[in-house]
Amino acid sequence: MDLRELLEGVKDNNLDIEDALLKLKNLPYEDLGYANIDHHREIRNGYPEVIYCEGKSDEHILGIIEKMNEKGSNILGTRCRKETFDKVKEVYNHAEYEALSKILKIQNHDIVNVGKGKVLVVTGGTSDMSVADEAYYTCKFLGNEVDKIYDVGVAGIHRLLNRIPALQEARVIIAVAGMEGALPSVLGGLVDVPVIAVPTSVGYGANFGGLSALLTMLNSCASGISVVNIDNGFGAGYLAAMINKLK
Amino acid sequence: MDLRELLEGVKDNNLDIEDALLKLKNLPYEDLGYANIDHHREIRNGYPEVIYCEGKSDEHILGIIEKMNEKGSNILGTRCRKETFDKVKEVYNHAEYEALSKILKIQNHDIVNVGKGKVLVVTGGTSDMSVADEAYYTCKFLGNEVDKIYDVGVAGIHRLLNRIPALQEARVIIAVAGMEGALPSVLGGLVDVPVIAVPTSVGYGANFGGLSALLTMLNSCASGISVVNIDNGFGAGYLAAMINKLK
Amino acid sequence: MDLRELLEGVKDNNLDIEDALLKLKNLPYEDLGYANIDHHREIRNGYPEVIYCEGKSDEHILGIIEKMNEKGSNILGTRCRKETFDKVKEVYNHAEYEALSKILKIQNHDIVNVGKGKVLVVTGGTSDMSVADEAYYTCKFLGNEVDKIYDVGVAGIHRLLNRIPALQEARVIIAVAGMEGALPSVLGGLVDVPVIAVPTSVGYGANFGGLSALLTMLNSCASGISVVNIDNGFGAGYLAAMINKLK
Amino acid sequence: MDLRELLEGVKDNNLDIEDALLKLKNLPYEDLGYANIDHHREIRNGYPEVIYCEGKSDEHILGIIEKMNEKGSNILGTRCRKETFDKVKEVYNHAEYEALSKILKIQNHDIVNVGKGKVLVVTGGTSDMSVADEAYYTCKFLGNEVDKIYDVGVAGIHRLLNRIPALQEARVIIAVAGMEGALPSVLGGLVDVPVIAVPTSVGYGANFGGLSALLTMLNSCASGISVVNIDNGFGAGYLAAMINKLK
Amino acid sequence: MDLRELLEGVKDNNLDIEDALLKLKNLPYEDLGYANIDHHREIRNGYPEVIYCEGKSDEHILGIIEKMNEKGSNILGTRCRKETFDKVKEVYNHAEYEALSKILKIQNHDIVNVGKGKVLVVTGGTSDMSVADEAYYTCKFLGNEVDKIYDVGVAGIHRLLNRIPALQEARVIIAVAGMEGALPSVLGGLVDVPVIAVPTSVGYGANFGGLSALLTMLNSCASGISVVNIDNGFGAGYLAAMINKLK
Amino acid sequence: MDLRELLEGVKDNNLDIEDALLKLKNLPYEDLGYANIDHHREIRNGYPEVIYCEGKSDEHILGIIEKMNEKGSNILGTRCRKETFDKVKEVYNHAEYEALSKILKIQNHDIVNVGKGKVLVVTGGTSDMSVADEAYYTCKFLGNEVDKIYDVGVAGIHRLLNRIPALQEARVIIAVAGMEGALPSVLGGLVDVPVIAVPTSVGYGANFGGLSALLTMLNSCASGISVVNIDNGFGAGYLAAMINKLK
Amino acid sequence: MDLRELLEGVKDNNLDIEDALLKLKNLPYEDLGYANIDHHREIRNGYPEVIYCEGKSDEHILGIIEKMNEKGSNILGTRCRKETFDKVKEVYNHAEYEALSKILKIQNHDIVNVGKGKVLVVTGGTSDMSVADEAYYTCKFLGNEVDKIYDVGVAGIHRLLNRIPALQEARVIIAVAGMEGALPSVLGGLVDVPVIAVPTSVGYGANFGGLSALLTMLNSCASGISVVNIDNGFGAGYLAAMINKLK
Amino acid sequence: MDLRELLEGVKDNNLDIEDALLKLKNLPYEDLGYANIDHHREIRNGYPEVIYCEGKSDEHILGIIEKMNEKGSNILGTRCRKETFDKVKEVYNHAEYEALSKILKIQNHDIVNVGKGKVLVVTGGTSDMSVADEAYYTCKFLGNEVDKIYDVGVAGIHRLLNRIPALQEARVIIAVAGMEGALPSVLGGLVDVPVIAVPTSVGYGANFGGLSALLTMLNSCASGISVVNIDNGFGAGYLAAMINKLK
Repeated sequence: MDLRELLEGVKDNNLDIEDALLKLKNLPYEDLGYANIDHHREIRNGYPEVIYCEGKSDEHILGIIEKMNEKGSNILGTRCRKETFDKVKEVYNHAEYEALSKILKIQNHDIVNVGKGKVLVVTGGTSDMSVADEAYYTCKFLGNEVDKIYDVGVAGIHRLLNRIPALQEARVIIAVAGMEGALPSVLGGLVDVPVIAVPTSVGYGANFGGLSALLTMLNSCASGISVVNIDNGFGAGYLAAMINKLK
Repeated sequence: MDLRELLEGVKDNNLDIEDALLKLKNLPYEDLGYANIDHHREIRNGYPEVIYCEGKSDEHILGIIEKMNEKGSNILGTRCRKETFDKVKEVYNHAEYEALSKILKIQNHDIVNVGKGKVLVVTGGTSDMSVADEAYYTCKFLGNEVDKIYDVGVAGIHRLLNRIPALQEARVIIAVAGMEGALPSVLGGLVDVPVIAVPTSVGYGANFGGLSALLTMLNSCASGISVVNIDNGFGAGYLAAMINKLK
Repeated sequence: MDLRELLEGVKDNNLDIEDALLKLKNLPYEDLGYANIDHHREIRNGYPEVIYCEGKSDEHILGIIEKMNEKGSNILGTRCRKETFDKVKEVYNHAEYEALSKILKIQNHDIVNVGKGKVLVVTGGTSDMSVADEAYYTCKFLGNEVDKIYDVGVAGIHRLLNRIPALQEARVIIAVAGMEGALPSVLGGLVDVPVIAVPTSVGYGANFGGLSALLTMLNSCASGISVVNIDNGFGAGYLAAMINKLK
Repeated sequence: MDLRELLEGVKDNNLDIEDALLKLKNLPYEDLGYANIDHHREIRNGYPEVIYCEGKSDEHILGIIEKMNEKGSNILGTRCRKETFDKVKEVYNHAEYEALSKILKIQNHDIVNVGKGKVLVVTGGTSDMSVADEAYYTCKFLGNEVDKIYDVGVAGIHRLLNRIPALQEARVIIAVAGMEGALPSVLGGLVDVPVIAVPTSVGYGANFGGLSALLTMLNSCASGISVVNIDNGFGAGYLAAMINKLK
Repeated sequence: MDLRELLEGVKDNNLDIEDALLKLKNLPYEDLGYANIDHHREIRNGYPEVIYCEGKSDEHILGIIEKMNEKGSNILGTRCRKETFDKVKEVYNHAEYEALSKILKIQNHDIVNVGKGKVLVVTGGTSDMSVADEAYYTCKFLGNEVDKIYDVGVAGIHRLLNRIPALQEARVIIAVAGMEGALPSVLGGLVDVPVIAVPTSVGYGANFGGLSALLTMLNSCASGISVVNIDNGFGAGYLAAMINKLK
Repeated sequence: MDLRELLEGVKDNNLDIEDALLKLKNLPYEDLGYANIDHHREIRNGYPEVIYCEGKSDEHILGIIEKMNEKGSNILGTRCRKETFDKVKEVYNHAEYEALSKILKIQNHDIVNVGKGKVLVVTGGTSDMSVADEAYYTCKFLGNEVDKIYDVGVAGIHRLLNRIPALQEARVIIAVAGMEGALPSVLGGLVDVPVIAVPTSVGYGANFGGLSALLTMLNSCASGISVVNIDNGFGAGYLAAMINKLK
Repeated sequence: MDLRELLEGVKDNNLDIEDALLKLKNLPYEDLGYANIDHHREIRNGYPEVIYCEGKSDEHILGIIEKMNEKGSNILGTRCRKETFDKVKEVYNHAEYEALSKILKIQNHDIVNVGKGKVLVVTGGTSDMSVADEAYYTCKFLGNEVDKIYDVGVAGIHRLLNRIPALQEARVIIAVAGMEGALPSVLGGLVDVPVIAVPTSVGYGANFGGLSALLTMLNSCASGISVVNIDNGFGAGYLAAMINKLK
Repeated sequence: MDLRELLEGVKDNNLDIEDALLKLKNLPYEDLGYANIDHHREIRNGYPEVIYCEGKSDEHILGIIEKMNEKGSNILGTRCRKETFDKVKEVYNHAEYEALSKILKIQNHDIVNVGKGKVLVVTGGTSDMSVADEAYYTCKFLGNEVDKIYDVGVAGIHRLLNRIPALQEARVIIAVAGMEGALPSVLGGLVDVPVIAVPTSVGYGANFGGLSALLTMLNSCASGISVVNIDNGFGAGYLAAMINKLK
């Protein structure tokens, strides 16, 4: 589409070839040397930018935020250290922080609800909350109505069965569980909507940093389940938003 | 809902307590001793039954088919040995078989298109076809329009870029890849719809039966990707159908 | 106890020192060169001998049976090839064979019921039957009343919930499951008796020969669960018998 | 049973349908938002509640204790940080702490001995004590007579053989071992009661955080052995109590 | 060659046998007890010495530098702690330090450009910079013209496609990537020069310390790719220099 | 370059926009439905096409060969089953087969030597020959002078030291080894040219299908070494050719 | 020593330089192209040659035997297929074969007992016999008095304790065990001589092809134990011979 | 032997049965509750006691030392924290500490040389020193003459070849190496004495805490090599002493 427009510009002599080449190169990304920022993502798909903060220096994070802020984007940062947030807060007074899930938010304009239904975040235990909250806040930030039901793991199945009505109201479910990670399997049999399974590294011994829950989820007998990386609350929240936006 | 109805029946003396208990036990599943068949699934969610044939004896498979056929259901069997199909064919003359993907089909009534958009199955290589076809036939069987683009792996990125229009038309994409399994990552950056990643066990050496592709997909930097089990074409097809059915 | 008796025999000159040394060495085991048979096990704990046939030559298996048969023991062989059984059958006409679980039985005297309650064997799927049957026949052979409920995996939780009365009647439960292996966790929350979890190698892809189910079971949040080796139906049946025999 | 009673209440108009639905939902668990507490467990099976403290914030732990204390339950907390205990102690003056095993206890009423025999905790080495003590205190807390024999690993087999009389007195044995983890195998051959094997992460190099001992125990040739998760002293103590309670 | 010369010396009586034996032993390496320094490497292949600092005490590192400095060599230290550098700096005032990549340099003479083309270092993300810089500085130190393009991972494929001209100018490419590590596969399809793939430990969850990226790279479908150890920027830089020097 | 030409064609009205779009899509690859063939590779980089036969049906392989043969390309097939070759031979009488390395060759025109030096293939043992030969024939096919030295593993170091002159003559070395895989480390210390290490799955026990040799090679202390996938003789041969072609 | 002699030969003009170089290169190994045979091993250390037959073609094995037979060496082949032996037997009528351990022997001269004590081979189970026999025959072939005690695994510890006198007579012990592999640990505590531990792949489920026994042995608490590769009976026999020969 | 003496004592009425039972139980080990000390080891095999300090509290270590000191034994502690040593030093003024290898020594009487030859400790790199020193000091403490050659890894093979005379003088060699761990393979081909291989966790990336070196050593093609646990310098030193003591 854009490519055709550009070609037509070239054909009609409205666009110089050198300019066209330049456009192809420079338009989509702003190169900071250490990072390439994708400014047209928000235009393209209505989603604001997201910065994965882990492994980036404070200086780099601040640099990226500066460029994004110039465009007036809403900004979401995941895995943001408290110390980094404090430095960001000094510059951007309206920045907010969710301590448990380490989410940084800078809201420059209203969030429009683009989801068509409700997203539900469910956890097996209390200890899965930080990952679940990452999914919860990501999904809300991307314009969705989101609910949560926590600590309803399968070892006390009635806790889950008591919530069937709420489960069946959701359009997409995010199931977060550590240890044996069996929650998505049971959920998958109770509902008829997509279940996004998030294994967490919660547990000890032979859980091997979440591998146990990951394998359980991948091997689920239930249909309609797919899996994201261990502790990847962000990925689950983003995917849920994407599914919930489908017309 | 059903529970309330049942309770009201009990209250109004229209339903005997022993009968109510029996109903609760016997309605949903038919117990063959070696298998419990879920007849109300099709009523509940519009999807016919699916039999996972691997590890079941021919005798058991035939027994399950018989019970399901009695109800007039459409029947899908995955991972069905050719020899098993031959035995099924003797009894059910209208049974069909897809040799590459080992899919068994018994169509007892028309398949209604319930999907709201198009599902697209994409593979990295020619060798991923059997898994991709399992997804393709499953998804069609569940009432979807499905297209396929095969052998467009990332090591020849132009093969994929040439197909961008087709990619951007899809409502859900199933990305099937073995070896390094990088296809979903690149796809995820090109489209704004959910990408269901299916790692395959295709490859050799340090691919460790598909582990390599599985890890790649789980660790994808792209957003909107989730993963099913290695070689699980059925699971991907089913999930795609579920997402595509969302109103 | 025996040691004291022996020492007293020595002290009272009723037992020669050389004889005492010999006794200590030779009594408990009969050495066939390739195998040491424990004849006093049946006397000691009421359990007949069990032969693990895998990896033993037919010749060795026949040799061991011969020695045990001489004592009139009941004989159980696990993982017995059909061809081996045929050779055994030629010599011991009353030998029996369970084809699915590969169990060989030679019953030389009545089996006395020594269990104090009922043992229940439960499976997640139809494909777990061979392992479950190994547990079932082992446990019966060791003198227990045993029931079975098959194909009640957690992805269709109502199949399991329908059976709660039967579950709650058992004194020990053996839970056999492959794939995601979540059955024991749910069971553990429904009953208050020991649950012996048996992971099976049933499944494909990232189940890694049963590793997936094994890790799930080890990481179970439910209390009262312990795990035996992958596909080790025999071990589960034996342990169930041992617990069920406790006064 | 309870379900029948409830249904009869409904039938006899002693119980309103809405009330009945409410009862089914709200009775068993108290939902704190971050946790669902199972108050009827103690009524159901005579066992007090247990809180797994790892991964829970002090605030959450205090909240859970508060609700449980209101019911007058005895409370056991495992993997409790010293700092958390100190905060608990400020509020509940009768709280106690076992430093080595990180066990928190709040005893609100006498512990009744419900075990029918003696439970014995055995370790391979001195370094396995913290895990062994977790099993020891859990099992005592659940109403059992418990003994311990520590540092009798198989590399000095006479240390173990010297204790045979004590071993043979036990009704259930918990065998705790790290490094090569061979203790349960030898024990399994010496006694005729269930042996619960607990691998510990004690060791270095190729013990891979307890994997070495775990695999050893799962692969044991001895009969009557089952395994719990690495370092899971609590799970072993709980299961031992459950077996020892069997009538 | 040298051996022949030495033999001729012995034959012509110009060289005593004991001396010859001594020469054979002592010439190539200088033995410090804790380290053997290879002084003739620079003469042999034009490359200065490199010290891998991790796991060596400051004392040992200083000892090795002293011996090398005596010969007037250029000295490169990798994985050098900041504290170690500070101690080195006290003695050798012209020592330099690259903080991100932990590179220590002592330049005692000019670096001669021996490379025949340009080496290009490319990264998938901002977080891969420390490893990429290790490659960059190593390769420069060994006498090469080196460029870098950072943060052009495959999830935003246009970032990479925009740089095709720069990519195609290089004689050797070093591709550094963590997470899914798909960058080298795409690069391998775009260029016709050797691609040295460096997996990094950047990521979380199922990336298992870089294993994910490592397996991806080893299983690449693209031709002309080879892999060095996880985070081994030095190794990649050294190999690139070696290839670039080929006449 | 090509893109500019195409753009100029569009600008000068020599090229219709629709045609330009078509060209961009259809030129480089010929789509057979199950495979996309890259015909311009030979023009682009002087290398003929290579077919990885494993996992492809005979029908697909024949289809691909047919299309490539039409263009008069030289054709190399790796991992080709003998039965497949026999079918190919029926159609293409001049097809050749290397049984040990399972290489299929159809030479339609002379192979031009494009390498600038000699490539040397070295193996640790006799059993590594099939992988080494795959490298050898691939590299020759791509226009290189190739030598081989087999069975000179490090456990008999003099076998290797005796060949130093031959080793030092090579411009690129391919080192193939299974079991402990230490050959490349020693080689890397003896020569100053790139060493491409190929781990093989030769061995037993704890070699885990080549993992042992793979890890050894990745962890090599020697400089100038990089690694390809287990048993990937083709990849090593191709890379060696690419390096040897560098001007 | 030899080097000095050679140097003296050169000095005294008894040895030409070119000859000396040739000698250094050609003496020790005979190069068959696919194999380098070490003829001087027998002279050097009194041990005959050993051929590892796995992965070698019959043609290559026969070629190696021919060259060794010419020198009149005793020849040992391990992992020799029965079919290979049959071909060898046709040419060398005095060749012998041990079917269980797949050992091929061609005895061309008497075996001299060079061991200073007795070597003892002990196994945990009957199924470990093939590996144990490989150790047994290797060690005898290398000139040692060897005894065996089979099926004395630790799950029936008295079988082992009954044999203490025999155990304490040995100068070196080879302990062969699969499954949990705990035999060497117990042995190590009973004797004061070196114990060579050989893990076997005997077992199933979580033994992972012998990994379980391997880890057990590596993590043994007992002193004086070292480990060889899984199923490596040959390696254990060879090492035992080497230790037993020590003066 | 001792058993016979005891039996004779009983027979001759020199020993009361109760006393005999007591002797059997209490003689060999002194039970401190948390530890069983083996006092008769020194009498039995001439070796003093060794305490593995890791995972033991200071209090327990001091308790064990006290009991051993009472008997006048020489005492060796491995993996001893500096802080622990300081506390020990306060009580036992003649205690000594080797900081690099964390060895604690309390010498209460002269060490007698019981070794029959020389033990040699060789390392691949400087970073392997701490493990190598643990072997060195253990072996000396057990009465052996020990030499060391450090930093002679295979990537610079001449460093090793220069030391052949020293290597060939040793009766037992301990080869310590991290990273690729190839040192023992090369050594095994150069000498005819037992080589004890010690993998170290030195390295990074895909060395996986020493797994890489461990697998290399287990898969060595060289004969006469066996392996101890990763970083287990003590185990290697003890085994070397045991072999060197063999008459």
